[in-house]
Amino acid sequence: MRRKEFAVEEEQEMITFLDQYSFGFLGTVSPEGEPRVTPLNFVYMDGCFYFHGSLAGEKMKQIKQHSLVSFTVAEEFSLIPSFFSDPELACPATSFFKSVMAAGYAEPVKELEIKGKVLQRFMEKLQPQGGYVPIDAEDPRYTGQLKAVAVVRIVPERISAKFKFGQNLNPERFEHISGELHKRNEGRDQETAEMMRKYCPFHQQ
Amino acid sequence: MRRKEFAVEEEQEMITFLDQYSFGFLGTVSPEGEPRVTPLNFVYMDGCFYFHGSLAGEKMKQIKQHSLVSFTVAEEFSLIPSFFSDPELACPATSFFKSVMAAGYAEPVKELEIKGKVLQRFMEKLQPQGGYVPIDAEDPRYTGQLKAVAVVRIVPERISAKFKFGQNLNPERFEHISGELHKRNEGRDQETAEMMRKYCPFHQQ
Repeated sequence: MRRKEFAVEEEQEMITFLDQYSFGFLGTVSPEGEPRVTPLNFVYMDGCFYFHGSLAGEKMKQIKQHSLVSFTVAEEFSLIPSFFSDPELACPATSFFKSVMAAGYAEPVKELEIKGKVLQRFMEKLQPQGGYVPIDAEDPRYTGQLKAVAVVRIVPERISAKFKFGQNLNPERFEHISGELHKRNEGRDQETAEMMRKYCPFHQQ
Repeated sequence: MRRKEFAVEEEQEMITFLDQYSFGFLGTVSPEGEPRVTPLNFVYMDGCFYFHGSLAGEKMKQIKQHSLVSFTVAEEFSLIPSFFSDPELACPATSFFKSVMAAGYAEPVKELEIKGKVLQRFMEKLQPQGGYVPIDAEDPRYTGQLKAVAVVRIVPERISAKFKFGQNLNPERFEHISGELHKRNEGRDQETAEMMRKYCPFHQQ
């Protein structure tokens, strides 16, 4: 799904998910054509993904040589056992999840001021309770650190989002699975049932 | 870290993690050299990763053309706020996690019998409570389904595991962070503190 095809509401759902979920997976390609998938904390800001790391690391080397990258964030909700749908066969076993997949190019951020803003955004996302001096490139306590850290911007050329919560089920099976989740009531079951209701076309306003 | 360098105990830790964690991220490369990262449920069995999907999907096409793949599994434990280490600066903020990264090649599994075994293993992992007729390629209720599903084996040429739980901290800071986790006691904090103790070189037997 191309980005422009998002309805505004859907794009907002995606941004909310990206703001809440702390880490994603960067796909890069080595000079030998070997893919590499690296888990990373990230922020999504002004339509781009950002991550930070060591200036000398393998990721930075790969990105310099081959700037096409992908970035995927996924969160699993409940596993849906086969017997919620079929008393006999294993086939309907599945899982419900949210995922966002982006493809684009990566570029190092060089301006100290922007590096500072990105890392401040990291802190607001991952440490919302505060308890630190805000990051500012002009603060001498931070300037040296900002010079020493690599910050990378991923500019997405395509973004697709998939929130799978049984939208394809017929109403009867939908109600049955939703009821079973409420009954089982383990782990994230209540939340998953809420998501089913939220994203199901039959239940949308 | 090359696979042969795992101590037996570490390899067992890795297998336990892969058996407990339900999904990972497949890295493939398109004919245009673009990486793609796809979240997938998986099983790890006899030293290989397996996943299943649609025979007609984009992943299958990419794997046929370019069989070099990577597969990464990561689980985040607690976020460690900067103020556990420094009352002022944001820099020490970090997260503790387990990750396994594999690189190798992908090959479709063609033998129905092996497909059945792999999917049965999926069920044992993701639906351990049972409640289904065991999958067997010779059971006519399953034969057709097994023909229609793609099962892919990833043969790893390298696997590395990183369990990051503050192993590099000096004993004083280690004790402080561990104590703060116990005090905060939110989300996975107790479990994270246990992992710190388990993997810290100062506390290992």
